[in-house]
Amino acid sequence: MNSDHLLQGLKERDPRAVAKAISLVENGDPLADSILASLDESLIDQALVLGITGPPGAGKSTLTNQIISYFRSQGKRIGVIAIDPSSPISGGAILGDRIRMMQHALDNDVVVRSMATRGRLGGLCAATGAAVRIMASSGCSHIIIETVGVGQSEMDIIRLADITALVLAPGLGDDIQAMKAGLLEVADLLVVNKADCAGAETLAMDMEAVARERREKNEGVIEVCMTVASEGKGIKDMLHVVAKIDEEYRQSGEIMKRRMKSHDLEVLDWAVELIKPKFLKMIAESDTSRKGDPRMKAVEILKKL
Amino acid sequence: MNSDHLLQGLKERDPRAVAKAISLVENGDPLADSILASLDESLIDQALVLGITGPPGAGKSTLTNQIISYFRSQGKRIGVIAIDPSSPISGGAILGDRIRMMQHALDNDVVVRSMATRGRLGGLCAATGAAVRIMASSGCSHIIIETVGVGQSEMDIIRLADITALVLAPGLGDDIQAMKAGLLEVADLLVVNKADCAGAETLAMDMEAVARERREKNEGVIEVCMTVASEGKGIKDMLHVVAKIDEEYRQSGEIMKRRMKSHDLEVLDWAVELIKPKFLKMIAESDTSRKGDPRMKAVEILKKL
Repeated sequence: MNSDHLLQGLKERDPRAVAKAISLVENGDPLADSILASLDESLIDQALVLGITGPPGAGKSTLTNQIISYFRSQGKRIGVIAIDPSSPISGGAILGDRIRMMQHALDNDVVVRSMATRGRLGGLCAATGAAVRIMASSGCSHIIIETVGVGQSEMDIIRLADITALVLAPGLGDDIQAMKAGLLEVADLLVVNKADCAGAETLAMDMEAVARERREKNEGVIEVCMTVASEGKGIKDMLHVVAKIDEEYRQSGEIMKRRMKSHDLEVLDWAVELIKPKFLKMIAESDTSRKGDPRMKAVEILKKL
Repeated sequence: MNSDHLLQGLKERDPRAVAKAISLVENGDPLADSILASLDESLIDQALVLGITGPPGAGKSTLTNQIISYFRSQGKRIGVIAIDPSSPISGGAILGDRIRMMQHALDNDVVVRSMATRGRLGGLCAATGAAVRIMASSGCSHIIIETVGVGQSEMDIIRLADITALVLAPGLGDDIQAMKAGLLEVADLLVVNKADCAGAETLAMDMEAVARERREKNEGVIEVCMTVASEGKGIKDMLHVVAKIDEEYRQSGEIMKRRMKSHDLEVLDWAVELIKPKFLKMIAESDTSRKGDPRMKAVEILKKL
């Protein structure tokens, strides 16, 4: 398949073309360049990129599935990128990640991609950004990036989203709740899932207080929603709020501002990704003893560039 | 405080000198160079770097505290580096991370450092490596790197350890258990904590099966331990196993091999860290529209290097 065929496939909304194009990017295939350079910028501009994050056990996957179903009932074409904290050695994706979208597996208008973290030292942000662009170019008007809200790279990835929903649930335990700390400061939407469980009201009140405080600091339209994702409850209301935030942020220029920031992040991540092989070669050639201060060696390598 | 004073402070095992030196590295202070280049390589070689990782809720912090107590009862000086999935905006460490070591707060021979992930795009591996070297140089014979076992960067950090213990507990739920997948392949020690809880025996049997399989593949000395960290049970046995693995790995050259690998990783991470400001400057200068394919722009930037 050459790049013209692939671009044609994207235009025709062929899910296999999407998968193939993303794989080319991930594998550093030379074809990737011409594909990425020929995507439909207007479709990319229009797409809504929704980040779904939160601690393990909050019900992100169930919620994502319900969101897909709702958007599909409105005839929308959906992209889903699941960031997968998988094995650094086997590179295998977690089984659950692969099967959880089975409900939509036969739907050609639900394009799912697991991005394995695969022990790469970087490039996840770059690759995810490229996947978003490819999906949007193939007509996905709504793209969901789902990631567990811990870890440095996962945080960076959330910055690729136009709007971010933090999913929480009552009774997750102290150290899990602590993980949400950073995300509370970047999320636009605070979703209290498992709203039928004990402690949900208290959690919602806490989240309301956070939202109020952030609104007072003019940090944006911060809203709290309650859902029972396993029963599909609250999904429609939540997505109305997402649509409202999207509209406000597009009018105020906030979406544009965020995209400019994420664009710079992606360029940086690509630059780093593309220079690493050169660095690795220089490290291998520079020294066989591997003794002494790593920082000094890095300084020497940069001097030789 | 100049670098001679700081190096003297490290030699005299002053915890404030350790804290100051690590901060200089984290802040990219020019003084950091001369400190890192003058550390005691022989102490660094001798130190044992133990990685403690595992999913949230497994009891890593409690276990770490017990390990510290045990080593202290043997008169050893301990360094602890807690990798903290903290806020990308405030940069604040999670309160729990700060207070959980309180038990040892007045002990000058327990040097604790929280490394906030602080929304930096990288450099966590480099900074953690530097912290290990600084602590070892100040006489810490045992250095613990504690990190939640999810996320790409956290995985890389575990590679800085000589020996890694994966802490698990029964009843953590499916998606949390799934996170351990990658870590099962890199850990030397599989610790079943909360061994007095229902399901511990089954978990231990599963882990024994994993350990057996990996031993048969000659992946090293893989051992299973059972602990009840909250009651201090099983800690001594666990640390005997750690000492045994350490001895075997030192004799076989495995520790040396791992350190050479992590040395290269650290050099790479420093090189990336040090070139980023240059990239960011070039990105800012290159284009004000922030439209088009990020990868192409990165390629252009590299051409101009």
